[in-house]
Amino acid sequence: MKALLPPGRAQLVGIGDDAAVIRAPDARVVATMDLLVEGRHFRRDWSAAFDIGCKAAAQNLADIAAMGAVPTALLVGFATPGHVPAEWARDLVRGLAQESGRAGASVAGGDVSSADAIMIAVTALGDLAGRDPVTRSGARPGDRVAVAGMPGRSAAGLALLTAGLAEPAAVVAAHRRPQPPYDAGPQAAALGATSMIDISDGLVQDLGHVAAASAVRIDVDTARLARDPQLAAAAAALGDADMLGWALTGGEDHVLAATFPAGTRLPARWTVIGSVAAGRGVRVDGHGSAADSGWDHFR
Amino acid sequence: MKALLPPGRAQLVGIGDDAAVIRAPDARVVATMDLLVEGRHFRRDWSAAFDIGCKAAAQNLADIAAMGAVPTALLVGFATPGHVPAEWARDLVRGLAQESGRAGASVAGGDVSSADAIMIAVTALGDLAGRDPVTRSGARPGDRVAVAGMPGRSAAGLALLTAGLAEPAAVVAAHRRPQPPYDAGPQAAALGATSMIDISDGLVQDLGHVAAASAVRIDVDTARLARDPQLAAAAAALGDADMLGWALTGGEDHVLAATFPAGTRLPARWTVIGSVAAGRGVRVDGHGSAADSGWDHFR
Repeated sequence: MKALLPPGRAQLVGIGDDAAVIRAPDARVVATMDLLVEGRHFRRDWSAAFDIGCKAAAQNLADIAAMGAVPTALLVGFATPGHVPAEWARDLVRGLAQESGRAGASVAGGDVSSADAIMIAVTALGDLAGRDPVTRSGARPGDRVAVAGMPGRSAAGLALLTAGLAEPAAVVAAHRRPQPPYDAGPQAAALGATSMIDISDGLVQDLGHVAAASAVRIDVDTARLARDPQLAAAAAALGDADMLGWALTGGEDHVLAATFPAGTRLPARWTVIGSVAAGRGVRVDGHGSAADSGWDHFR
Repeated sequence: MKALLPPGRAQLVGIGDDAAVIRAPDARVVATMDLLVEGRHFRRDWSAAFDIGCKAAAQNLADIAAMGAVPTALLVGFATPGHVPAEWARDLVRGLAQESGRAGASVAGGDVSSADAIMIAVTALGDLAGRDPVTRSGARPGDRVAVAGMPGRSAAGLALLTAGLAEPAAVVAAHRRPQPPYDAGPQAAALGATSMIDISDGLVQDLGHVAAASAVRIDVDTARLARDPQLAAAAAALGDADMLGWALTGGEDHVLAATFPAGTRLPARWTVIGSVAAGRGVRVDGHGSAADSGWDHFR
């Protein structure tokens, strides 16, 4: 496996010793871990090993970016039954390595075990490069809410696949291999973002986490979300499907949502989709639950 | 669970955000991950949840110490079937927290998932405090080999439990909850250790990893190993059992073995057990395999 895993620029000691040593020039390290369990988070009959590897890396690397940090390294734990082909495992590792490389990071260590079902544990590390971490708790009334990347494409891609469709190909690809906008995280931090989160559970639900942590209300304006031509094409291919539902409640896109002080000049990749007010919960076009759990009209 | 996990001194952002933020004052971070799978690495009918938590933390924290670093934080992934009692999970977390605290670290983040069997993924992070990492590859002919902590007690404790014995209690406890000498790792680095490893697979096998990585031969003098009164008491309790076998091939002690230049004045906790020569493999009292896989006479 080691031959499939080129050392990264942040990696001082890599695979093969008791532990890896990774550069942390900021003197702080950002660290996150996710588990992926076969049958819960992926199915081998639905997804190729390479895609599962890319996705496992992406969801962790996006968590690093959502703190405003630059990914530096992954550690990967891989538990597998003996009957899983070695080539499947190699493709998984290739996916992990490719997506890490896209984020500027590398797979620097990990562990392998036998098990009755496949489980993948991924730890991602990152560097803040001198900026303060952007948590979920800093949103303030008057802030603007913006997203980098278009939420809903992963859910739309799944709907296409379920219907036996392979077009629009970009939407199907977004489901198979979400490509989080990693550099938008540090960019948002540099622009003065007051809070940030990666959209893994769905836009409204994840904004609900920000609203709860920040003790504010978040108002979403769906007119701003309805402009993704790829989502529109997917909805048309499925006979006028609910593209707004995908955008509001679809998970696993790993795009970034952040809040910025009013008046922040945002680069074009950041689309303003709402605002922050006193109160609690998330409102969509003025409606919706005020509960911390967010808004579940489309569920 | 969060109430069971007090924030550590290195922890700047803890549980509840997209990622944790941990101090890394050295501008490098040491990182390792181990998987523990139910039925492979532990059994619920043999071990209490608290002990499993302690052990899961200890084996990762020992890997950090074996690089010469000071542990700072753990991330823990916990996959579990729904029928596992919540109290079992809480005891596991209590064990993880207690052993982390003993090492000066804290549980700063992680993930929880459902699964068909329990799996625990632990990532440990540590700080080098300005010292070079001590890898497996720096042993040189003429160096002395020394251990901090006594190898074999975990294997002896298991033999006692298997025989239905509860005494010597210290040996049984060493199996249930190994207590790696974490601060001996940074101490060895400060003393100029040329290589270091934590004893997880057995002394001879792990010294074999050092011999292979350093392209040297390691000679073990068993007279130096035969002086642990606890091991001797366990052997006597079992009717003159093979205490040297425990010391040479017993795993899971997570004591530290290191090589030092000849003439290094070692503190009393470090016991010299051998020396490094040109060649390859591990020799025990002049005998044994020269293969990289080490010496398996007792297997």
